Amino acid sequence: MRALSRSARSKGESVAFVPTMGALHAGHVSLFERARATHDRVAASVFVNPLQFGPREDFTRYPRPVARDNRLSRAAGVDWLFRPSARTLYPPGSTTRVVPGPLASRYEGAVRPGHFTGVLTVVLKLLQIVEPDTLILGRKDAQQAALVGSMMRDLDVPARLVVAPTVRERDGLALSSRNAYLSAQERVRAAGLHRALAAGRAAARAGARDARRIESAVRVTLKLISRPDAIDYVALVDPSTFEPVRRLRSRALLAAAIRLGRTRIIDNVTVSPR
Amino acid sequence: MRALSRSARSKGESVAFVPTMGALHAGHVSLFERARATHDRVAASVFVNPLQFGPREDFTRYPRPVARDNRLSRAAGVDWLFRPSARTLYPPGSTTRVVPGPLASRYEGAVRPGHFTGVLTVVLKLLQIVEPDTLILGRKDAQQAALVGSMMRDLDVPARLVVAPTVRERDGLALSSRNAYLSAQERVRAAGLHRALAAGRAAARAGARDARRIESAVRVTLKLISRPDAIDYVALVDPSTFEPVRRLRSRALLAAAIRLGRTRIIDNVTVSPR
Repeated sequence: MRALSRSARSKGESVAFVPTMGALHAGHVSLFERARATHDRVAASVFVNPLQFGPREDFTRYPRPVARDNRLSRAAGVDWLFRPSARTLYPPGSTTRVVPGPLASRYEGAVRPGHFTGVLTVVLKLLQIVEPDTLILGRKDAQQAALVGSMMRDLDVPARLVVAPTVRERDGLALSSRNAYLSAQERVRAAGLHRALAAGRAAARAGARDARRIESAVRVTLKLISRPDAIDYVALVDPSTFEPVRRLRSRALLAAAIRLGRTRIIDNVTVSPR
Repeated sequence: MRALSRSARSKGESVAFVPTMGALHAGHVSLFERARATHDRVAASVFVNPLQFGPREDFTRYPRPVARDNRLSRAAGVDWLFRPSARTLYPPGSTTRVVPGPLASRYEGAVRPGHFTGVLTVVLKLLQIVEPDTLILGRKDAQQAALVGSMMRDLDVPARLVVAPTVRERDGLALSSRNAYLSAQERVRAAGLHRALAAGRAAARAGARDARRIESAVRVTLKLISRPDAIDYVALVDPSTFEPVRRLRSRALLAAAIRLGRTRIIDNVTVSPR
């Protein structure tokens, strides 16, 4: 993988890189297409990273449709699909970790202890292997994107980060490989997550500035139309640090995570005071 | 720094990198000379890394002879001396860390909690900035070299590690910037550390295989000729993992750390069963 990337760069070609866990959908495809439109070469990886899954999470049942992923990525203009094994990336005795700062212990990090250490470790490894000019991530995993951006700045990684817009179903549900777990009835309720976030954004447009009022608009709508089995969090946060925002003064992120049966879904929208 | 290194590499030149904390001595010079002899370009850094010092350690009094370091490095063939400020490497909000595995909690890590996290974080940052083909470290800090090597493997850093021999005074004392702290009387006692390690090696040559017997030969000699104010550790370890070795079966490292007044000194020798 590194030899391919170096050979391209030595000819003056630019390289974009999109890391994925496979089970590709139109959200991934939009990242590949963005990479394709802006760079000479597109590298992507498929790796279901054991390090970022908790012991009770869905590592073993996470979907792995290999042939379909190969076809979709090729059709979307991926030049190189990197598919390492867990043994290659984590040989016995591999113990060094890339550990995020305190902003990683909130929200996703609070519900999934160790998750972001797994994410940062594998993303740094992949960046060292692929050596891209640009890393492209999706905005649906906004806290992940913020933490990867911090990691790249903090560790002086010589690549640029681009965070690309979330792709949604017609009813607003953010595309996610985990949507495949939803039953038909849960799938209908899942669409309520984006509608609830939109209700929070509408409250801000109508003049709400207090984060609690905006978050409350989300919760109320969620309970009405999604009837989630649990709400892990609803939070107005700073988009780059993921610090909670008390009053809406500049562009912020309204993020939420809910559970529907055994499935967790997350989403976020931007909210502005104007 | 990165632009200089990239420009050289784009012309096909090889780049070696020697990170230091300054207060350069003949040990550093030997690393520079090795870099010079084997690579087209030599980069070195001088950075007294606050992250690897404990709150009660010698960060503020660590020597910083700027003009002398410039002169010595230039004379030894360093092309680029990189001298970042702490503010440049750790701007406010810089919180991501590179954390070593469990082998870092022994020996130096037991005495200096957090030390190796500071070392790995700054070394990874410098590697990302300099992008060398080869990183050159000294063998005196053997546990550091082992942990940096593990980090580079574990995180797929695209550089090779070379660990170069310790340079010693005529009486055997390993060169160290901290030797400048020793009083005349402590300086005489300090030479006993290498002699004590040599006594351990001699015990192995005479047939000792049990680590306790070899370590005991070191301790006995140390107490006789160094009269240290404390012995932090004397340990027979695996050279690459720093796991303790119970019986000498293959090449091992005999490492020790002692205190003379306010100064800690460390050293190590290799020991073979044959």
